Amino acid sequence: MLTKTVCMTAYEDIVNLAQRRSLFYPASEIYQNAPAGMLNFGPYGAAIRRKMIDVWRKELVRKENFLEIEGAQLMPEDVFKASGHLTNFNDPFTQCKKCNTIHRADKLLEEVTKEQFKEAMPVGQLTAGIREHKLKCPKCKGELADVRQFNMMVRADVGAASKTAFLRMTKTMRIKLPQGLAQVGEVFRNEISPRQTLLRQVEFVQMESEVFFDSEKVNEIEHFEEIQDYKINILRAGKTENELIKAKDLVSKKIVSGKIIAYYLARTQQLYEQYGFAVEKMRFRELDDTERAFYAKEAWDFEVNLSLGWTELIANNYRTDYDLKGHALGSKKDLSYVYDTGKKIIPHVWETSIGLGRTMYAILENTYHKEGERTWLSLPYAIAPIQASIFPLLSNKPELVEKAKNLFNELRDCFELFYDDSGSIGKRYARMDEVGCPFCVTIDFDSIANKDVTMRERDSTKQARVKITDLRTVLFDLISERKTINDLK
Amino acid sequence: MLTKTVCMTAYEDIVNLAQRRSLFYPASEIYQNAPAGMLNFGPYGAAIRRKMIDVWRKELVRKENFLEIEGAQLMPEDVFKASGHLTNFNDPFTQCKKCNTIHRADKLLEEVTKEQFKEAMPVGQLTAGIREHKLKCPKCKGELADVRQFNMMVRADVGAASKTAFLRMTKTMRIKLPQGLAQVGEVFRNEISPRQTLLRQVEFVQMESEVFFDSEKVNEIEHFEEIQDYKINILRAGKTENELIKAKDLVSKKIVSGKIIAYYLARTQQLYEQYGFAVEKMRFRELDDTERAFYAKEAWDFEVNLSLGWTELIANNYRTDYDLKGHALGSKKDLSYVYDTGKKIIPHVWETSIGLGRTMYAILENTYHKEGERTWLSLPYAIAPIQASIFPLLSNKPELVEKAKNLFNELRDCFELFYDDSGSIGKRYARMDEVGCPFCVTIDFDSIANKDVTMRERDSTKQARVKITDLRTVLFDLISERKTINDLK
Repeated sequence: MLTKTVCMTAYEDIVNLAQRRSLFYPASEIYQNAPAGMLNFGPYGAAIRRKMIDVWRKELVRKENFLEIEGAQLMPEDVFKASGHLTNFNDPFTQCKKCNTIHRADKLLEEVTKEQFKEAMPVGQLTAGIREHKLKCPKCKGELADVRQFNMMVRADVGAASKTAFLRMTKTMRIKLPQGLAQVGEVFRNEISPRQTLLRQVEFVQMESEVFFDSEKVNEIEHFEEIQDYKINILRAGKTENELIKAKDLVSKKIVSGKIIAYYLARTQQLYEQYGFAVEKMRFRELDDTERAFYAKEAWDFEVNLSLGWTELIANNYRTDYDLKGHALGSKKDLSYVYDTGKKIIPHVWETSIGLGRTMYAILENTYHKEGERTWLSLPYAIAPIQASIFPLLSNKPELVEKAKNLFNELRDCFELFYDDSGSIGKRYARMDEVGCPFCVTIDFDSIANKDVTMRERDSTKQARVKITDLRTVLFDLISERKTINDLK
Repeated sequence: MLTKTVCMTAYEDIVNLAQRRSLFYPASEIYQNAPAGMLNFGPYGAAIRRKMIDVWRKELVRKENFLEIEGAQLMPEDVFKASGHLTNFNDPFTQCKKCNTIHRADKLLEEVTKEQFKEAMPVGQLTAGIREHKLKCPKCKGELADVRQFNMMVRADVGAASKTAFLRMTKTMRIKLPQGLAQVGEVFRNEISPRQTLLRQVEFVQMESEVFFDSEKVNEIEHFEEIQDYKINILRAGKTENELIKAKDLVSKKIVSGKIIAYYLARTQQLYEQYGFAVEKMRFRELDDTERAFYAKEAWDFEVNLSLGWTELIANNYRTDYDLKGHALGSKKDLSYVYDTGKKIIPHVWETSIGLGRTMYAILENTYHKEGERTWLSLPYAIAPIQASIFPLLSNKPELVEKAKNLFNELRDCFELFYDDSGSIGKRYARMDEVGCPFCVTIDFDSIANKDVTMRERDSTKQARVKITDLRTVLFDLISERKTINDLK
């Protein structure tokens, strides 16, 4: 997948831009043995992420009346046992001191010695084994560090808190089915070979939602009529061509188990339209029996078409009553939902796990443009890290600097602004283009005489003069897309 | 401190309310052996926390032009070694299977056997020691679980990412000193006896900021004049009485090292005024030589006066150049700041670490009221989990339900609303009071005839009729505190 030169280039362009503007960069980069797969996000990158979460919260959580909770990251083993995540998560690892690659210590020893090494073996013994057999990094022959174990009590599943919280919510929040619970949370994965920055992180953020419903009422969902004619791009299991199909036809052709599922597929694709993706660049890929988790009745990977190929950003799983039954068994608590009539059911769960980091990468690649010397991100305004920047034309003219700073201080209560007076105006535009800031406002000598400023739009680079007294309204209209730069004289 | 009955009562009131309304509750509570000190936050609790962070971001981060970054939680050991946190963080622990109390395994063994047990001893050996000596839980004599170790690669210090990122920011963001970096992050603490819910969590969220400055310019800070006459409540080391003192006098009397420190103490106290605390209920307590960390030139614990006594919510530390020197040494990188003139300095750091959970507890206790049957939280509107709720007077009247639902759907784009039609109107008011929802809007039979609704305010329980056509504007004016319920006819 990574063999095509064009792929590497687009990917590398993004990584280079990210490093240059501190959108993201390796965590603890100043340290030589910093582990791979861990990223820090600089101010612009962190802002884009916050805004992506805000859009998810607005478009999905709030519009769908999901209850958003915040679960602990540390959880007892039993919770993981119930959710089936434990076995994947207690691996002992060793890291190459030279190339930083992480290897499973037990597997490495097994390969060389052909003996059975148990995961549960104390890390000290595994380290001793590595030393005894003089094992080196299989990749670069570097020295291997002492074996360590990932902490089993760190969260491997954001949704576990929602699933165990469901019963509580039915009692304290008086909820009725169907009801969604949502959560943003950090997840840790013992990724053997972390690479590709945002696409394969050891720790990553998921935006999760679980819709709990009565399996007998999988066709009962409010507002279905709003999306019934909305077209969803899918790739059916065993097929090679995507098909655009109306939500209602997904149901009538029994491609999905019911209206609830079609509805949330539609709402998820609509969310990604807000993130700036064209419908043809997205698809839900149906997982076949061999790919699906054993508990999933139906599963669709949401993918977008990137230079790296179709890339999974979301796992959508119809988990049936597997989780609630598992947690009921593990905790010995009755997790049934009881209707007013006294009828008891174990709700089914439709789960949507959105990878924030992967989606961020996809958005960056989707909005990245390079034309000649100019590079810019055409980020949707709602997720741009800054809404507008304010510049004095020249930084050595106190009257311009003062006026620009005053304007900045005056408007920052309403807008997310950035003030910059270093370097030439061209360089300042270039820096703002690279982080996707949609509007730049420049104070020049005419500003003092005429009480107006230059407004420049990012994608078209078109400019217009705006009266300072109108600036607040104009900026509001532009950012909320009530007007475009072409509407200004 | 916990001996006074009155203390336990206020604390228990909050915990009971929190459980009843799912503001917070023990993580994995359905599991019997759920570890103590880990909490989940239900929809209202999670919303209050998000809004507390929003207020911090608006009042401190954005107003002070701090750069907010997002650092990885997992960090290599070297980073912790440099920051001095490592040694406190590799403790082996065992948990009582009965009462869930967590104990340091090595300390427990030491106490009983009077032998030296090394922390670094494999957990298997420690477990064997516990079994051999038939150790039981010192608290309840319950059986002890196998010894486990906290993962050393989990973050113990939110600020490390800011400190190591500082150099990068000077290069990619073109920053000038003084400059603040900020971060919200989850921290894990191997708390031996987690208790008191929000006050002592094993994992907790910190809102951190580090202001980097030239130690020779500790008296140079913009906008100092805005806070110079603002009075700060302090308790000096060795004194027993708090003093209210102007920010400028903190400087002139050399109580603090300079204006930068006085400025941020003032701004921090102002933030807590936004959270609803009266100045007399807050203080900065100066730490004496014995309490201060060895690297801190000056340290002030920010405390609020709760039923539990003066309780620390924030650690403020003048960390000098300790961190950057440590990280420079650990990473062998030059972390100096270079002026345009070529002059090189190692910046000093003023650090403010706000405990989100503790602050949330303090806010809940500070806004908790009980009068007769009525219980309510007088939360500042900016951190109320819901801005208004919409009720039909009776849930069995379709025309009222429909009108209320329509109103809810119409207004929810602008406001954070909750719709409720279950139980009597009195019970619905009571539920909203308990989660601090400031306004309730009820649709009754007159609403249909007169096209108006009843607006009820939380703290006064005063009511007013509002025309439906004016509702959007009225709600906006009320929530933004442009008007009060008394201004409505």
